[in-house]
Formats: sequence, structure tokens, C-alpha cells
Amino acid sequence: MLENTKELLEARRFPELAAQLKELNAADVAAMLSDAKPEDILRIYRLLPKELAAESFVEMNPDEQEYLISAFTNHELSELLDEMFVDDTVNVIEEMPAGLVKKILKNTDAQTRRVINEILCYPEDSAGSMMTIEYVDLKRDMRVSDAFAHIRQTGVDSETIYTCYVTDAQRKLLGLVTVKDLLLADEQTIVSDIMQTYIIKVSTHDDQEYVALQFEKYDFAVIPVVDAEDRLVGIVTFDDAMDVIRQEDTEDIEKMNAITPSGESYFNISPIQHAKNRIIWLLFLMLSATFTGMLITHYEEAFAAVPLLVSFIPMLMDTGGNCGAQSSTLVIRGLALNEIRFSDFFRLWGSEMIVAILCGVVLAAVNFVRVMIMYGDIKIGLVTGITLIGVAMTAKTLGCVMPMLAKKLKLDPALMASPIITTVTDCICILIYFTVATRAFQF
Amino acid sequence: MLENTKELLEARRFPELAAQLKELNAADVAAMLSDAKPEDILRIYRLLPKELAAESFVEMNPDEQEYLISAFTNHELSELLDEMFVDDTVNVIEEMPAGLVKKILKNTDAQTRRVINEILCYPEDSAGSMMTIEYVDLKRDMRVSDAFAHIRQTGVDSETIYTCYVTDAQRKLLGLVTVKDLLLADEQTIVSDIMQTYIIKVSTHDDQEYVALQFEKYDFAVIPVVDAEDRLVGIVTFDDAMDVIRQEDTEDIEKMNAITPSGESYFNISPIQHAKNRIIWLLFLMLSATFTGMLITHYEEAFAAVPLLVSFIPMLMDTGGNCGAQSSTLVIRGLALNEIRFSDFFRLWGSEMIVAILCGVVLAAVNFVRVMIMYGDIKIGLVTGITLIGVAMTAKTLGCVMPMLAKKLKLDPALMASPIITTVTDCICILIYFTVATRAFQF
Repeated sequence: MLENTKELLEARRFPELAAQLKELNAADVAAMLSDAKPEDILRIYRLLPKELAAESFVEMNPDEQEYLISAFTNHELSELLDEMFVDDTVNVIEEMPAGLVKKILKNTDAQTRRVINEILCYPEDSAGSMMTIEYVDLKRDMRVSDAFAHIRQTGVDSETIYTCYVTDAQRKLLGLVTVKDLLLADEQTIVSDIMQTYIIKVSTHDDQEYVALQFEKYDFAVIPVVDAEDRLVGIVTFDDAMDVIRQEDTEDIEKMNAITPSGESYFNISPIQHAKNRIIWLLFLMLSATFTGMLITHYEEAFAAVPLLVSFIPMLMDTGGNCGAQSSTLVIRGLALNEIRFSDFFRLWGSEMIVAILCGVVLAAVNFVRVMIMYGDIKIGLVTGITLIGVAMTAKTLGCVMPMLAKKLKLDPALMASPIITTVTDCICILIYFTVATRAFQF
Repeated sequence: MLENTKELLEARRFPELAAQLKELNAADVAAMLSDAKPEDILRIYRLLPKELAAESFVEMNPDEQEYLISAFTNHELSELLDEMFVDDTVNVIEEMPAGLVKKILKNTDAQTRRVINEILCYPEDSAGSMMTIEYVDLKRDMRVSDAFAHIRQTGVDSETIYTCYVTDAQRKLLGLVTVKDLLLADEQTIVSDIMQTYIIKVSTHDDQEYVALQFEKYDFAVIPVVDAEDRLVGIVTFDDAMDVIRQEDTEDIEKMNAITPSGESYFNISPIQHAKNRIIWLLFLMLSATFTGMLITHYEEAFAAVPLLVSFIPMLMDTGGNCGAQSSTLVIRGLALNEIRFSDFFRLWGSEMIVAILCGVVLAAVNFVRVMIMYGDIKIGLVTGITLIGVAMTAKTLGCVMPMLAKKLKLDPALMASPIITTVTDCICILIYFTVATRAFQF
């Protein structure tokens, strides 16, 4: 079907193209517009029915949105904004240059403009900034038949109709009913008799990660957002929660690998911006490694006497780094998913010590055999083996302590991952190695 | 409210507890059962209304589910299984020992048993293994009023009623209508006049990651699953897609840090199992690091002549590892989210080379200043600087090539992350370093 659409475009058969396009999903139309030649974009866009046009617009890249908004007449823009949900409009505004923001605000009605400004005031990444206001609200004394009439009337413009919220005159949230509840109830039933009153909700200032965790925990399709006075101000839908999950996971993965998260896909940022997102961490870690270097200088005599000692440095450092990365990864992930809490610290550390000793002993044994085969030197085999066990225990301790400590200090645990743990472990690794070696060889 | 529940339990005021429990959400009831004393679990469970009991059961840990299934009477178990959706039953069965699987299958009706066996036959992590069969299906010639009657009749037992599928006599998928479409249509309208016919669907053997990506792309609440003959066999709902996203992200993060993924939360596996999930990678990486060690032995003369050279090894190796980790992370993530394709290779590599040169030059400059301050040795400053630039370029090249190659070879790109890239980079780093040093100092 998509292929067919491309052929129609190439053949410039616009009426048939229009007929095809309206069958497509917004994400596919957006992808098609991305691939189209700049001069065709506006032309294709104008073939779309209003609702699909708005949905497709939301799915497009900021660059393409910017291009379209500049090209739109005021009438076209205000028609588009009418169709769009407020949360999407806010997302678009956040990416646009000031001139276009003005053009957008000029073409929205006063009421929407007020709401947009309110949402823009909530902290970035808060429930308030990701919510939308297009929900169905019912009154407690409505009958089921009234509720359906109200849904039919306001539902077209709502992001979801399937969960309806019951509010009082002060917009306080009293309960919720689903369309399923309504369909299974008698027409004459009063809404307050079938509504659920124990409602999981989030507040406007809750972090988006917390909101996403509520979706995962309760499997809801939508969660209501209330303000400090417990008044219903908006809803968050599951699709936005899904995006938050991916976004937060991607950010964590980037932080765990010494990258300042950009929130953009790879090809959406320039190489210069990529370099900027990476250089700070590289510099910091490079300069930190200086300590390890200075420590090595301190033991110059040792490796002057037994040069073979130097050749084990990479193996010991890498193993330490890997042991630490393993522990810190599991701790960081456990903290993010609420599976590990600060109060679990000693249980966690105990478990990691058992793992460290088990892994350390196996590594030491295999290494010993390897050293005996290659060099036949028992002393070196023992020195490196003892170091391996010590390094595994130190690295796994750091892997527990550092993310936990970050959490306690309200820093992001994801920063305490492989790169920084490796750098600290390296230093301690060299210290253990040459201390053990000095004793064994009695320099 | 949850606190209140706990107090009622402690005071053994069961009738009031029962009244409170039925207001709670399944996830909260499950959490409460987890915290309860073993002898109380069954007692509390029996206070729950049937539907909530089944929903709460689904949210519990396998250990607790196992305990309950053993404790249930046959009647209780068959009542529970009646309430549960087939996808949940299959998930439970997959975690139970053989004895309890028999008990479960014995207490399901023949029709459900057949479906369970079918779903169990689909590959793990496929759309077929995550789907459920409780959806609403309509016929094309039904009127809207018939459709509502059908939904009212079968909707109670459906996982979602809001998207209904229209099938023909051979169960071929013809179209879909949402309850919103139905509510906004006239009662006399024929379903086939308002149904959408261009439907995004997945097939039973599609991978769960692909299914999750469709949800993210199209923002659907539910996706139909068809078999090889294009017959509708089930549906996947957004909450399961959300779980898949977290699970796949967690698995990727673990693989990227030298851990064999377990699919379990930290405290659900024993330290011995934790050690097993980590030791293979540690051993493999430790032994790989042997090559770097052998290479160093080869340059013994060099660091015998200039011992200071040794002290830069950790800094150079760490920087190489970090540079490689950054690139491989972005490539692995881009591949997982379909933002980078194999055909982007040269564009990607070009971009990474610009980043490598920019970062390498800055690192080299800062390092040069540092060396001049600490040792006042221009030669060492230049040798380490040139090595840094070379290492950054090599590491970032490996960070692009290795995940891309893994993808091409149908391996998981996440395996080609920091640990393995670090090990390979170390080796090349030592080679560059001593080659440059040998030329500079003319050993």
C-alpha cells in the first residue's frame, strides 16, 4: 500500500493519491512526507483529511514541522491547531523558534492559549508538561443515558473517551467510569452508583518517570492529573508513557556510557553536537586516570625488577572494570525500576560479595593455570590470582556503593556506571597489585 | 488506604478488610499479599471478589502463585482460571513446575486447554506467545445496534472491548471498528460501512520487539495477531507491549555490561545464579586481555628505557574504552530503535570520524598541557597525544563496525558493547602507543 502511494506520487496522480492517503495511518503518512521532495510536502499535506493531517503532523520531525508551519496560511495553521490535542501542540511549540511560536499562539483561540501557557509553566519532564486537557468529564448525578449523550457530544475532540472522569462543581475528582461500565449498566443507572472512587492519580509536579512507573504497575490506559488542590487538570495517556519509558531508558543507557543525553536520534544531531555531548566525560575520565598513572610511577622499581608484571596490568584493570560494570548495571537498573531500595543496601552488598568471591576464585584459578602454562612462574600466578579476587571484591563493592550513594544524594545513579567505576577500580587495582607483588617479591 | 488495610489485617478484622480490599487495584492487592505472613495469604485471597482475585493473582510473583496454586482446591483453581485471560494463564504455566502445570490444565475446560497448548507452541518472545484470544469479533453485516448487543454480551470476558475486529466465516480479518466509531454512528448503520479496512497487524511468529515497535510507532492500544493464512488468532494489548519494552531494554543494558540476562529482578535470583550469569563473560574477557599483555611483553625494552611510558597505559586504555563505548552505545541503541539501518553505515562512520578527530584533538591538547606541567617532557606529550587521537579514531571505528557487523550476522548488536570493544581497543591502543613511542625515542 505504501509502495503504491509512492508510485502515485511519482506519476503525479494526485486525486488517486488523496484517496489512498486517507486509508493510511498517521505514522506512515509522516514517514512518506519525510521521504518526499520539499516542494511536494505541502502539496501532499493539503490532500489529507483534516484529522489525519493533524495526526500526521504530530508524528513528523521538528524540522519538517517548522517548514510546514512557515509555509501554512494563518487559516491552515488555525485549522490544524484546532484538530491537535493540547499536549501535542505544547510539544511542537517547545521545538519551534520564537517567531513561529508567535505565529502558532496567534492562531489558537484564547482558551487554548491560556492552557498552553499553563502547561509550558510546569517543570520539564513533569506530569503537568506531558498531560493533555481533552478528556470526558461527567457529573455524579448523570444517568448512563446522559453520560452517553455527553460522550457523543464531546467525544470527537477527546484524546480518549473510554475512561470518563466524574468531577464536582469545583473540578474536584470524585470518581471514574469506563465506557465498558456504562455499556454494561442499565440506561437509567446513576453514574455515581457505578463509578470507582479509589483512583490512582498523579499530581502535576510528579516526575514523568514516576508517571510511567504507575502505568506499568497498574496497566492503565490513562491516568488523571490533579493539581495541589486535588482538582482534575488533565490526563496522561499510555502512548506518552510508552515514549517516556523509551526516552528514560535511552537516557540511562547514554549516561551509563559517558554520553550527555540529547533526547534526539543519532542522525538528528550534528557531529559537532555529538562531540560536545561526549568530550566533557572523556576529559574528566582521562584526567581522573592520571592518579592511576601516578601510582604506577610510584612502583617503577617493582616493574624494573620484574618487567613481566606490567603485562598483567591490562588484564587486571579490564577484569576490575567489567566486575564493577556488572554490579553497578544491576543496581542502577534495579533502582530505576524500583526493585532495589536504599534499605536493601546490606542485603545487596552481601549478595554481591558472594558473587565477587565466587567469580574471583574461578578467575584466579583459570588465570593461574594460564600463567603456569605460559611462564611457569608460581609467584606471578599467585600474585595475579590474589589481585583478581581483591579487585573483584573491590569493584563489586564500588558497583553497589556508588549508585546507592548517588541515589541518596539525589543525583542520577546512572552516572555511577562503567566508565567512572572503571576509573576508580583501576586505581585500587594497581594499588592491590603492587602491594601484593612487593610482598611476594620483596623488592 | 493501603495503610488502613494493613491495620485491619493486624487487628484480624476480616469483614472490614474485605470491604476495603475490593476498592483497591490489583497491583496493590498483590503487593499487600507479598508482604503478608504465609499463613494469612490464602485467607486474604479468599476475601477478594472473583475478578479482583484473578487480576491480583496475575500481578503476584511466581513463588507466591506457586504457593497459592498448591493450596487451592480444584474448585477454587478452576474458578480462578475461568476469570483469567489466556495470555496470563500461559505466563503462569511457563513458570510452574510440572506437577502444578498438570493441576492447572486439569482444571481448565477443553477449549481453553487447546488454546493454551497452541500458544505454548509459539516461539518464546513471539507475538503468538504474548497474545490473548479474548477479543470482540463482529460480522460485517451487523448493524451498530447489533454490535453493541454483541459487545454487551461478550464484553465482560474480553481483555478490551474498545477495538472490535470484523471477521468473515473463515476468521479472515476484514476490518476494525472502535467503540468510539460505533458510539458516534447511527444505530442503523451497517458495520462494514464504518469499519477501517487498512489494518496494521502482526503475525504469530513476529518477534515481540517488533510488536512493541509497532505500538510505539502507531500509538495503538491493541494490535491484532494473524496466522500464516491471515486468520485472526488473537490480540496483543499495550500493557504487554510496555512490559516488553522494559524487558528488552533491561536485557540490552545487561548484555552491554557483560551480563547474561536473566529476565528476573535482582533479588529474585540467588547469588550463585548471579555469579553464573557473569562468570562466562568475565572469563572470556580476561583471557582476551592476554593478547594485550603479550603485546606489552614484546615492548619490554621500551619501558625499561623510559619507565614513565608505563604510567600512561591506564589513561590511554581507559580513554580508548570510553570512546568506543560511546560510539557502540549510540549505534546499538539506534539499531534497536530502528533509527539506524545497515545502509547508513558510511554516513555513520563519517560522522563518528569527525567526532573522533574533534574529541581526539581536544584530549591530546589537554593531555599535552598536563604532561608539560607534570614532567616538562615534550616528547612524551607528543607521543601520548598522537596515541590519543589514533586511539579515539580506532575505538570509534570499532564502535560502529562491530555492532553493525553483529546485526548483519544476525547476532545481537548489544553484545558488541563496552566490555568487548574495550578489550579489542586495549590491544590496538598498546600497539599504537609503543609504535609511536619507538619511533620517537628510537629504541
